This record gives sequence, structure tokens and C-alpha cells, in this order.
Amino acid sequence: MKKINVVVTGATGQVAYALLPRIAAGEMFGPDTEVDLRLSDIPQMIDKAKGVVMELEDGAYPLLSRVTASADRAETHRDADWVLLVGSVPRGPGMERGDLIRKNGPIFVEEGKAVAQHAGQGVHVVVVGNPCNTNCLIARANARSITNDRWSAMTRLDQNRARSLIANKAGARVKDVKKLAIWGNHSATLYPDFTNATVNGKAAADAIDRAWLENDFISAVQQRGAAVIAARGASSAFSAAQGLVDHVRSLVTATPPGDCFSAAVVSDGSYGVPEGLVSSFPLHSKGDGGYELVRSVKLDRFATEKIAATVAELVKERDLVKDLLT
Amino acid sequence: MKKINVVVTGATGQVAYALLPRIAAGEMFGPDTEVDLRLSDIPQMIDKAKGVVMELEDGAYPLLSRVTASADRAETHRDADWVLLVGSVPRGPGMERGDLIRKNGPIFVEEGKAVAQHAGQGVHVVVVGNPCNTNCLIARANARSITNDRWSAMTRLDQNRARSLIANKAGARVKDVKKLAIWGNHSATLYPDFTNATVNGKAAADAIDRAWLENDFISAVQQRGAAVIAARGASSAFSAAQGLVDHVRSLVTATPPGDCFSAAVVSDGSYGVPEGLVSSFPLHSKGDGGYELVRSVKLDRFATEKIAATVAELVKERDLVKDLLT
Repeated sequence: MKKINVVVTGATGQVAYALLPRIAAGEMFGPDTEVDLRLSDIPQMIDKAKGVVMELEDGAYPLLSRVTASADRAETHRDADWVLLVGSVPRGPGMERGDLIRKNGPIFVEEGKAVAQHAGQGVHVVVVGNPCNTNCLIARANARSITNDRWSAMTRLDQNRARSLIANKAGARVKDVKKLAIWGNHSATLYPDFTNATVNGKAAADAIDRAWLENDFISAVQQRGAAVIAARGASSAFSAAQGLVDHVRSLVTATPPGDCFSAAVVSDGSYGVPEGLVSSFPLHSKGDGGYELVRSVKLDRFATEKIAATVAELVKERDLVKDLLT
Repeated sequence: MKKINVVVTGATGQVAYALLPRIAAGEMFGPDTEVDLRLSDIPQMIDKAKGVVMELEDGAYPLLSRVTASADRAETHRDADWVLLVGSVPRGPGMERGDLIRKNGPIFVEEGKAVAQHAGQGVHVVVVGNPCNTNCLIARANARSITNDRWSAMTRLDQNRARSLIANKAGARVKDVKKLAIWGNHSATLYPDFTNATVNGKAAADAIDRAWLENDFISAVQQRGAAVIAARGASSAFSAAQGLVDHVRSLVTATPPGDCFSAAVVSDGSYGVPEGLVSSFPLHSKGDGGYELVRSVKLDRFATEKIAATVAELVKERDLVKDLLT
């Protein structure tokens, strides 16, 4: 039995509430891995976090070796194998994306420093708290001792949504939609690349009207979060948690042949994405927690332009937080 | 691949919100069963339920063959294999248990009739909505065509809590605590039978001080729900959902030798529990969705008295809803 230490920040939030039982039940790291689960939150939320700890105890999870809550990162992050940065300041009324980025920046400076100072050398860090790409960029820049390949930000909810929308349109099942990669920023500019996706082994653009894919589909993926809020009266929580379960599982299990998964990772300059930006790409994993960029993707003019636009947004976001990256 | 139809009532509530992604991910019925998931709620909640459906679509679950929401039980319950009665009216300020029972009674008359009218002949019904034992008694009485062995109410959260408390006290892991059965009513009178429980194969009463077991332990299990509310500021949701995942899994997978699980089922008169009452017992399953009562349990005087007290409460509750049972 393998044993790992896992930190979840923003532990009293709705996404964490949907996520923590999934981790405790072994869905993220599998049935052969015991988890020492550390709930991290700001001091004024720790009493509430202890209520969440009680519910985790009440789950009688065989794989949960220990569960604790603390606002002290020296405690929670000590020898951490995985740090899941779920918490962030949400967008308030009237707040622009730029405001949100500046508001979260200093928090992720601290998150990065805490990882560098306390976590294990082999730590993996996943950023979910939005704006997740740029939050990840900031945290990564403040933890120089941790190599590039250990950082990622979540675009898996977008990938899941995109696969589901295509399956629904094609009258197929989600499991029959493959190679649907998300490129760029987890924002309204993200590009779900249908041009390389397949439905039951056929090109998606052959199975579905291309005009629908270029217009309705892309905007449906980009606007799905708002549509859920409108219907449910609250933002996506369990589907975000599911995205993170899938994100990590894709890193710790081998990618099936003929498929890929998406996550935002530190660019090595491939596909014209400036080196160092945290941008979403199609990835493969050998199942060891790491990933390799899929390098053989052919991008037509439509895809190239869409990716350029979302990457341009990431460049602007980086410029906005330049002072936090040194 | 097996295919089943599963109904969840109270689909927009907090417990259902924690439960639905677990069912969709295959945790309840296993990796070889596809689920047609039907969300049932009252008419004014269906718009919100459709937001939950969107999030389930956004999970891209390979095992979720279909997901819908409706207030029309003729739609949701049609050919149902499992009906999970999660919804109920919660206790309002100043409401006594008796008021709660009378308030929920008519709802569960309707739930029973809907099951009899629309569900498949082999349907299994599990009641989670409180007061779950008596709600189950009422529903069962209004669905005469469905045999006794198809009905159960959830005491698994109590069992999980009890195992966790004993493990913690004994300095053991939850997985090392076995044969911890809950008897009677899911209420403040429930009896967690430590006298037959084992910790690492030893009698719990040898591993732990008996005075603690007789007093602090029993009241801690009985009052755990209130303690979670005090800490978290909200009632147990994901741990209740976990209890239901475990409850159903225990029915659809074979019970490991040397262990048992608890659920409230229709009494056949065993152990002096009046026939027809829905009371919690130690059970075994062959993994076919059914169960057998464990008949060999030795109950000492302490256990016998505790069980008599919780069963007396069930008799009183039955008398309170007599008019709904004919």
C-alpha cells in the first residue's frame, strides 16, 4: 500500500466539499494508495473546516489514514506529495477579470512560497482556484526549486463539458468522443479543438455540421459555467470537483492509446505558445504523475487563430502580474 | 454491461447534490453497470434540478447512459430498479419529532403508491429522508405488491460514525473495526452494539474501557449529527451520501466473511422486534441486492435493554401513523 500526503486549500468551499469525499473514497489516487488528507484554509474558517473533518471521519474510509485541518501551512504542507490549490478569492460584483487577477496574485505568491518551503521534493501542484492559469504561473514563479513539470492548472471541466456537448449533438455517448483537447486559458477565450476530435473513430467535423462546431459549440463550452449558474442558482461545484478527480487520475494512470487529456502546463515554447506561460495543451501520461505534450497535432488555420487569441490573453494576464513573478 | 434505472428524490437537496456524482461515477453500482439516472423533485424545484442535470452532463461520466429531471413520477419511476427516497420535509423550528412524522407521512404514502404503480417488479427502495424508519414503514404499507425484502432505510451513517469513533478510541484504523451493528431506530435512541464488535479481531469491550462504551460512545453516536451541525453550520450532507453509497454497495456486493452491515429492514419478528416494524439489524448480503438477517448474535442484558428502548420508540411512531398504513 502506497501512502501519500495530500493538501486541499479552500477546504470549506463548495468545490472542496464535493471533492474531499472523492479523495477519501480513493477515487483520485486509486484503491492501492492511502491518503493523509490535510485541509487548508484561512484562520477564520478552521472551526468550520473541523466540521468537514468530522464528516470525513464519519465516512469510515478505509484508505483515509489521517485527516486534519489547519491554517498553518507549515503543518498542512509538510512533505506534501500533492497540493491541490482549490481556494481563491471569487469574483465580486462589478469586479473585472483584471481586478480578480490582481486580487488573487498575492495569495498565490504565498501558495508558491509555502510549497517551496514545506512540500516534498516530488510534489505535484494543481491549481483550480480562478484565474487558474495565471494563479499557477504566479505560484510556480515563487517556488523555483520545484521543476516546471510539477505544475498544472485545471481545464478538465472544460474538456468534460466539450465532450459531453459533442456527444449530445452527435447522438453518441461521451465515452465515444476522444482527442477533444482544450487549448489556452481557462476563460471565455478557451479553445476546445474539435478539429482533431473523433466521435466513434470518425473526425468530429465529419460527424457534425462544421458551422455548429465553429460557432454554437465553442460558445456553449465557453459559456457553460454561466448557464449552470442561471439554472442552479449557484456556480458549478461537483462538476468542478469531478474535473479535478479526472485531472489527477489522468496524471497517475496511463493515458489509453488513441486518446489524450487536457491540462494547463508550463509551456516549453511548443505550438508557438511563449515559453513559461501556463497554457492548456493536449497531453499524454505514463501514469507516474507526469505528462508529455502531444507534439503531433495538426492545427488548421481556424484552430491556429483561436489558439493565438487565447494565448494572447494569457500574455496580457502575465504582464498584469509581472511584479509578482520575480 | 448491466443497465439499471435509478430514481433519486429530493434531487435538489444537499444530500442528493453530494450523492448524484457518486452514482454517476459508478461508485454505487460498480464499473460494470450503466445507470439511467432520474432526478425527482417537487414541481417548483425542477428548473434547479435541470441545473444539476447540466452538471451531471458536464461530468462526462462513461457509465451514465441518460440523466433527466421531472416532477412527474410516471416518468421518473417507470421501470425503476432502485428508488432512493432522499427527499423529505426537514424539521422546522419548534417542531417535535411527532410533528415531523405526521408532516412526512402523507408524502411517503405517495412515494409508496408511485413505486407500486410505476417501478419495476424487482425494484429496491431505500429511504434516507427522515424519520426514515417510519417513512419506510408508511411507503411499504402503500405498495403491497412489492415484497418486504425490497425495502430498507438507512442507518449506515450511524454505523460509519460508530466504527470511526471506536477506531479513534482504540488507536486503530476504521477498517480494523468489524461487526459493529446499529439496532432499532435512526434517532437519538439508536443502539450501536459494541458488545459484538471487534477491533483487530478482539472484542471491542476488551480493547476499550466498557464504561466509555456504555456511556460516552453511545451518546457520541446518537449526538454526532448535532455536533456536525454545530461545527460546520450545516447538517451532514456528504457523509449521509457516503452512507447511502455504502448501504447500496453492501446490498449489491457480497459481505466479506467475518463482518456484517446495518440497515433498517422489515422485521420478521426476530430478536423480539415486532413483525412489520422497520428496524435496523445486522445483515449479510450475497451481493444480489438482497440481504439475510444475521441470526446468531448474542445479546447481553445491556444490549437487550437498549434494543427494547429503541424498538419501543418505533412502536410509538407506528401508532402515530396507523391511519396511513391501511
